Amino acid sequence: MMIHLTRRERFNAAHRLFNEDWDDKKNFECFGKCANPNWHGHNYELFVTVKGNVNPQLGFVVNLKRLSKIIKEKVIEKLDHKNLNLEVDFLQGKVVSTENIAIGIWEQLEPAVKNIGIELHCVKVVETENNFVEYFGS
Amino acid sequence: MMIHLTRRERFNAAHRLFNEDWDDKKNFECFGKCANPNWHGHNYELFVTVKGNVNPQLGFVVNLKRLSKIIKEKVIEKLDHKNLNLEVDFLQGKVVSTENIAIGIWEQLEPAVKNIGIELHCVKVVETENNFVEYFGS
Amino acid sequence: MMIHLTRRERFNAAHRLFNEDWDDKKNFECFGKCANPNWHGHNYELFVTVKGNVNPQLGFVVNLKRLSKIIKEKVIEKLDHKNLNLEVDFLQGKVVSTENIAIGIWEQLEPAVKNIGIELHCVKVVETENNFVEYFGS
Amino acid sequence: MMIHLTRRERFNAAHRLFNEDWDDKKNFECFGKCANPNWHGHNYELFVTVKGNVNPQLGFVVNLKRLSKIIKEKVIEKLDHKNLNLEVDFLQGKVVSTENIAIGIWEQLEPAVKNIGIELHCVKVVETENNFVEYFGS
Amino acid sequence: MMIHLTRRERFNAAHRLFNEDWDDKKNFECFGKCANPNWHGHNYELFVTVKGNVNPQLGFVVNLKRLSKIIKEKVIEKLDHKNLNLEVDFLQGKVVSTENIAIGIWEQLEPAVKNIGIELHCVKVVETENNFVEYFGS
Amino acid sequence: MMIHLTRRERFNAAHRLFNEDWDDKKNFECFGKCANPNWHGHNYELFVTVKGNVNPQLGFVVNLKRLSKIIKEKVIEKLDHKNLNLEVDFLQGKVVSTENIAIGIWEQLEPAVKNIGIELHCVKVVETENNFVEYFGS
Repeated sequence: MMIHLTRRERFNAAHRLFNEDWDDKKNFECFGKCANPNWHGHNYELFVTVKGNVNPQLGFVVNLKRLSKIIKEKVIEKLDHKNLNLEVDFLQGKVVSTENIAIGIWEQLEPAVKNIGIELHCVKVVETENNFVEYFGS
Repeated sequence: MMIHLTRRERFNAAHRLFNEDWDDKKNFECFGKCANPNWHGHNYELFVTVKGNVNPQLGFVVNLKRLSKIIKEKVIEKLDHKNLNLEVDFLQGKVVSTENIAIGIWEQLEPAVKNIGIELHCVKVVETENNFVEYFGS
Repeated sequence: MMIHLTRRERFNAAHRLFNEDWDDKKNFECFGKCANPNWHGHNYELFVTVKGNVNPQLGFVVNLKRLSKIIKEKVIEKLDHKNLNLEVDFLQGKVVSTENIAIGIWEQLEPAVKNIGIELHCVKVVETENNFVEYFGS
Repeated sequence: MMIHLTRRERFNAAHRLFNEDWDDKKNFECFGKCANPNWHGHNYELFVTVKGNVNPQLGFVVNLKRLSKIIKEKVIEKLDHKNLNLEVDFLQGKVVSTENIAIGIWEQLEPAVKNIGIELHCVKVVETENNFVEYFGS
Repeated sequence: MMIHLTRRERFNAAHRLFNEDWDDKKNFECFGKCANPNWHGHNYELFVTVKGNVNPQLGFVVNLKRLSKIIKEKVIEKLDHKNLNLEVDFLQGKVVSTENIAIGIWEQLEPAVKNIGIELHCVKVVETENNFVEYFGS
Repeated sequence: MMIHLTRRERFNAAHRLFNEDWDDKKNFECFGKCANPNWHGHNYELFVTVKGNVNPQLGFVVNLKRLSKIIKEKVIEKLDHKNLNLEVDFLQGKVVSTENIAIGIWEQLEPAVKNIGIELHCVKVVETENNFVEYFGS
């Protein structure tokens, strides 16, 4: 019996939308005020959905504390109260869009989640109350 | 790498549930207080989900402002502060249920979204905190 | 020991902003799209705050069911799935603004709340996620 | 035209995470403070998603009141203001995890939903703002 | 310059509404399903508001971590994943209503908050999305 | 009849907690990860509450669009997608805490609100779902 289990974590971070191959003029044309070189920031919400069978003795797909610990160690500690452009190894050289943040988080989490015998199903990143992205791994 | 991107927009509107082939008695039997001929209304929330590959230079499936502009022009301007039964071309002759609102919004958005090279994935319409519908296009 | 107790109720209704002493042109100038003669509507949230001492045997300022029953009988039944301009006795002849809705609700509730030995403290009406009013009775 | 329709209901209940084949020591090791023999509790949110074609005369997949009545009769009355371990027939002998609550609710609802000609798509149970599960029936 | 600062904490707990001087029949008459002897429970939200002047060097009324630590030590550790009737020293002998929970929390927090040079202004306890209480200390 | 009217606006910004009279070591001791010299950021919510009598012809304390325009011109345009430490004139030389942001916003808004004949009652700034401040002007 396959269950989807979702854990929410949060991180507050600074970023700018910026393609390092372009000059400031082109960055402003493409990204508007999000290109501000002095940065802006968000309260990001991260929803990590895993799926798997229910362990009959525990009643769990996976212990939530164990899942939360993986998410915190692999991504939240790297993202929270950080500058996403300057300080996050897995976002180096990318435009730090919500899309790329979600893909980067997936790549950090996927091996660790597989390693405990379950499957990563979705990484959802909410940037504001009006926009979010979901990545399902391909 | 396929990403789902969701944009929320809102509209406040009046409507009634009402089948014009029926008399008031039958409308009240089927729709209860929602059939009130003097109308009632809602703060509707609209979540539009598109999917596509991430543009490597922009980091986007689509620029959110461009998506938001399409949604506003194609649907919000027609729905917001309007009477959904009387004033909305794409709802004429239909029961103005949340289901039909979602289908109507899909039909308005789908060609415009395809036209900018991405795919419409889901139209979700939230009528109250206790009920919403999702339409995936077929 | 004075406690403030708040109960939330909800109502979905149609209205328009409209001063019956003015012509349509002036109503549109003052109220914009909210003056639409075909109505629009909202999911209103109503927060009723009462205050009083805690009954030592019950642990309550007032039984919530009793308070909820008063709110439903005195205001929700008159407002929910109604046209606030046409169908609500206590709003007749007024501009149906959030301000006047809150004052009208206060006047409906205040005698009934006093009658059960507690005090009405605040009527808060939330029209959208971006605006609400509070009325404290004078 | 297939539509997904979701109805939210809520229930407040006590439970503990506890495997009756284990002693208290092992239960605490596996479930931590959630194993407290004196119970704890939650405000659970239940989102029931059904799918089906839109009835052209009604504009509905199913009348929301009818769906809500089924959910209340089949599950909410059994769960609300109850002890999930002691008082719920369909959870007897199971670890009362969010996963097992969702599966149990599915099994209660699925025949009744099929009986009115629509299909149960998803049972989502939200235990806290930070975790929820979804069950799709297999 | 007096600022009000509010910190939210959460606790999940079991309770029943029950006056130990009454028999079960009277408890059910007064408290309805909330009197269930097998308990039920809630996700409580606690909003603690303090007030004070802004420290010009820190920009704070009080460091949020320090305030959060006091709330956790004085109340959350005693309440979270507990049975409020059986396990909480400061609620013994009282009806465990939201009102009495708020008053009890105030009495736990007030000396500790005064001890760090600020003033406790309000304890707000949210039991469900539809009801909450506020206590201002007298 | 005095009514309190509240308008919500939002801004996304970068900041750091930092006292320019201190070295990095002392800033980290006092502000922890919030002192990160590479900045972090938030989705701030701003609730502006004004009070006044209801204009009998308009039904308003003040037209919401007029209030919203003042808030946007006086504060949101200066704060949104900005670095609060580097780019905001009214925060220069201050620790950019939520407290000081609220006081600064008050000082920007108060003359403009008075100028249209109403009174500023409260500026509430929500930094995360777990903390907010309120300033009442003294």
